[in-house]
Amino acid sequence: MPGGPEAKGLTMTRLTIRIDFDDERQIGHGKIRLIEAIGAHGSISAAARAIGMSYRRAWLLLDEVNRMFATPVVDARMGGKGGGAAALTPLGHELVTLYRGIETSAGVEYSARLASLTEHLSTPPSGRA
Amino acid sequence: MPGGPEAKGLTMTRLTIRIDFDDERQIGHGKIRLIEAIGAHGSISAAARAIGMSYRRAWLLLDEVNRMFATPVVDARMGGKGGGAAALTPLGHELVTLYRGIETSAGVEYSARLASLTEHLSTPPSGRA
Repeated sequence: MPGGPEAKGLTMTRLTIRIDFDDERQIGHGKIRLIEAIGAHGSISAAARAIGMSYRRAWLLLDEVNRMFATPVVDARMGGKGGGAAALTPLGHELVTLYRGIETSAGVEYSARLASLTEHLSTPPSGRA
Repeated sequence: MPGGPEAKGLTMTRLTIRIDFDDERQIGHGKIRLIEAIGAHGSISAAARAIGMSYRRAWLLLDEVNRMFATPVVDARMGGKGGGAAALTPLGHELVTLYRGIETSAGVEYSARLASLTEHLSTPPSGRA
């Protein structure tokens, strides 16, 4: 087995954001990742496969997002020759771009301070007692 | 009953961030809120009460954070006259400040775009079908 990337100080710190519109409507990493994958792969089933999510879970998550907004984020055409093609709507693109923009700019702005915090981590990830 | 704040467009959109140091070590809203409350109230039990968390849950969360780092984020003195006073360490202060700083600056930088996204929300929060 190779040495692995867990050398001292070399952690994979990542920032994730969540947008809470209200108590019931939230957008986080999982939904954004799914929407992006639909945009990249052109169907819900291919997107679910690509990110290792069950089709059912993908469908439910997407339905939840589509209900949040007055217009859908994904335009899904069930059936037909293509067997259920799906594409992002302009709102879907806007949502993904905004989410990733917030995430990236926060990560960039605070990368040095996050890195310095990382230096305080205990050496081995302590297991649960 | 007064009109309530749920008038059209007036949602309480909030950004929350999560810092993942690795697969096992994460800092999110719940832990930060607890650490802040300990700083404000001077003991774990008072902090737990103030944020409506059980003492057991607060203790476990705090223990998880303290194990993440080489030095603790909260200095808790069990027993004694004060009955278990607790205070933030410099690392604890740094963690809270960094977390809230990222959250605030992301919210400020993107507030206009978040507000414009909010205008696309469906009018009533749709219940689950």
